[in-house]
Amino acid sequence: MTAKSMPAPLTPGDGKLRIYVENRENAFGNFVVSQDDLRRALGTQADRVEISVNSANAPDFASLQAATFFIGSGFDPQRLRDYGRKLRVVHCLSAGVEYYMPLDWLPSGAVLTNSSGAHEEKGGQYGLMAVLMLNERMPRLITSQKERRWDQAFSSTIRGKTALFFGTGSLGSAIAACLKPLGVRRIGISRNGRPVEAFDACHTVDTLHEWLPKADFLVVATPLTPATRNAIGAREIALLPPHAGLVNIGRAPVVDYLALATVLREGRLSGAVLDVFDEEPLPESSDLWDVPNLIITPHTSCDDHHNYIDRCLSIFAGNVERLSKGLPLENVVDAIHQY
Amino acid sequence: MTAKSMPAPLTPGDGKLRIYVENRENAFGNFVVSQDDLRRALGTQADRVEISVNSANAPDFASLQAATFFIGSGFDPQRLRDYGRKLRVVHCLSAGVEYYMPLDWLPSGAVLTNSSGAHEEKGGQYGLMAVLMLNERMPRLITSQKERRWDQAFSSTIRGKTALFFGTGSLGSAIAACLKPLGVRRIGISRNGRPVEAFDACHTVDTLHEWLPKADFLVVATPLTPATRNAIGAREIALLPPHAGLVNIGRAPVVDYLALATVLREGRLSGAVLDVFDEEPLPESSDLWDVPNLIITPHTSCDDHHNYIDRCLSIFAGNVERLSKGLPLENVVDAIHQY
Repeated sequence: MTAKSMPAPLTPGDGKLRIYVENRENAFGNFVVSQDDLRRALGTQADRVEISVNSANAPDFASLQAATFFIGSGFDPQRLRDYGRKLRVVHCLSAGVEYYMPLDWLPSGAVLTNSSGAHEEKGGQYGLMAVLMLNERMPRLITSQKERRWDQAFSSTIRGKTALFFGTGSLGSAIAACLKPLGVRRIGISRNGRPVEAFDACHTVDTLHEWLPKADFLVVATPLTPATRNAIGAREIALLPPHAGLVNIGRAPVVDYLALATVLREGRLSGAVLDVFDEEPLPESSDLWDVPNLIITPHTSCDDHHNYIDRCLSIFAGNVERLSKGLPLENVVDAIHQY
Repeated sequence: MTAKSMPAPLTPGDGKLRIYVENRENAFGNFVVSQDDLRRALGTQADRVEISVNSANAPDFASLQAATFFIGSGFDPQRLRDYGRKLRVVHCLSAGVEYYMPLDWLPSGAVLTNSSGAHEEKGGQYGLMAVLMLNERMPRLITSQKERRWDQAFSSTIRGKTALFFGTGSLGSAIAACLKPLGVRRIGISRNGRPVEAFDACHTVDTLHEWLPKADFLVVATPLTPATRNAIGAREIALLPPHAGLVNIGRAPVVDYLALATVLREGRLSGAVLDVFDEEPLPESSDLWDVPNLIITPHTSCDDHHNYIDRCLSIFAGNVERLSKGLPLENVVDAIHQY
C-alpha cells in the first residue's frame, strides 16, 4: 500500500466494530487503557463497538483476528501481520513510531495512526521550562550547587533572544506557542520549511547550518527518521554560539550525545537539558549522569499521567468517527517520511 | 516627616540640579552607574543637571553637601544624614530597603525611593521557570540525577493548578502575569488584599492559613518588613499539601529555612527553589546546599545585567521629571510599612 492511503470506510454492513486493546504488563497504571476509558472517549459511538482488552503477554488471537481496530504501544508488529488480517486502523499510544518501521508488516488495507498531539500541552510546558532554564543558566547553577559554590552567573531577560526549533510538528509548535508571550523569536527548521503558526518563520532543513550560529537556544523536537538520525552532530553543535543552550525533547539519536558531552566538559555551550536517551532507563553506569552543565530528566517531558491516555483515545475516537463518515483520517503515519 | 510625604518641587530658582552618584567598589561592572548611563536616562532633563560620580570608599563630601539627588545602593545612611542636608530624593538601586530601616536618618524634606519594578520582567521569567520546575518535579529529578537514578516522577500539565502568592507587588504580579497564559489559578495574599490585575483574586494576610492547604505552589515575593519576617514558618509550611512546592524570590527571613529543610529531608513537599539567603554568599559550609529536592540559585533571579541599571535610572529620571512638575513621586518608600 502507498503512504497515507485510506482504509475502507465503515458502513452499517460492518455491524459491531471490534476494537482490540493490548496493554503491556510493565506499563505504569496511568498508561493502561480500560474498557471505561475507551467507551468514554468514543461517546455515542460506543454503542456500536465491542471492546476486547488484553495483556500483551496473554493475547486473545481469536479476538485479534476479528478486530477492525487495534490500540496498543510497544506492540509486536509480526503478531499483527499474522493475526490482524481484518484490521483497518492500528493506533499507537505514542507519538514516536520508529520502532515499527518499515511498515511492511501492516495488514493490507490498514493504516498506522500515532498519538502525535497528545503530548502537546505538557510537552509545550516542559519545553518552555527547559528554555527558561537555559536562559537562567540553570545547568551551570545546578552544577555549582553540587559543588557548594555561590556562582553568580547573571542572565538577562529572554525577550528578543532566538529559539531555533529543529522540528515544527505539534511538539515544537506547542513549545514555540508557550515562548511567544515572552517575546522570544521563534525560528522553525523542518523538512519542507512550510509556515507553521507558532513560529515567526520556518525554513527548510538545508538552511540549518546558516541558522545554528544565530540561535540562543536549540530545541530538538523531531521524530526519529532516517533523515533526522544524527542530524545534530558534532559539526552542528560546533556551529552554535558558545553561550547557546540545547534541549532535546524528541528522540535521542537525533543528537550526537558524545559530541555534546565533550563540548559541555570543555565549558562550551551554556548547558543542555535532555529528556530522551538511546537506552532507557539510562544505565547507572552512563557517563552522561555527571556531565557538567547537563540536566537529565527521565523521559517525563511529555507524558501527562492524568490526561495522556484520554488524549490518545480522543485521537483514536476522532478517527473512528471520520472512518464512519468516509473522511480522511488524522495522524496517519507516512511510510516514506516515517512520522 | 510622615510617610509618603512629598519633597519640595523643583523650581527654576533651583538652578542646576546636582546629582550625587555613589558606586560600590565591589559591585559587578554591570551594576555601576556612569555619567553616560544617567544622562541617557534623564534625556532632555540632562541639560539642567550636574552629575558627580564617586566611589563609596572615596566620598566627595562637598558635592554630597550640595546635592539635591543621591543615587546608590548599600550606602551608609549615617553619611547621608550628616552630609546630605540638601537632598530631596535618595534613590536606592534595589527593591529591598530593609537595610535602611528605620528611616530616621533621612534628611528633613527628603524621601527614599527604591527600584521596585526594575526587576519585573526578569523576575517574572525566573518565577515562571521556578513554578514550572516545581510542576515538573525538577527538584526531585535533579536530586535523582545526582544519585544516577532513573526516577520517572511523572507530572501533569499545570493548567488549573493553584499558585498562591505571598506578596502581590511588582514582582509577584510579574510572575502571575507570566503564569496566566498557562491557565494557572493565581491567588494573591497581601497586607490589604486589594485587587491586583494579574491575579484571579487577592485576599488579606489573615486568610493565609485558609489558602495554604489549597496551594499547589507557594510563591514568596514580599519585601522584608516586621510584618513579613518569618511569616512562612513551620506552621505555614505544614499547612501546604504534601505535593506542593515553594519558591522564594523575595527575602530569606520571610521563610523559615530550617523548617523547610526539615520538611524536605522528610520527603514532604515536592520541592523548593530558593534564590535568597540570610547570609550571601551562602557559605560553603551551609547545610542548605545538599538538602534533597532543594534547588539553590545565587540571588540571580531578578538582576538583569544588561538592562537592570537602565531600568533603575529610568525610575529615577521619571521622578526628577515629576518633581519638576510638582507631581507625586513614584516608588517612595513608606516608613511605616517599610516598602
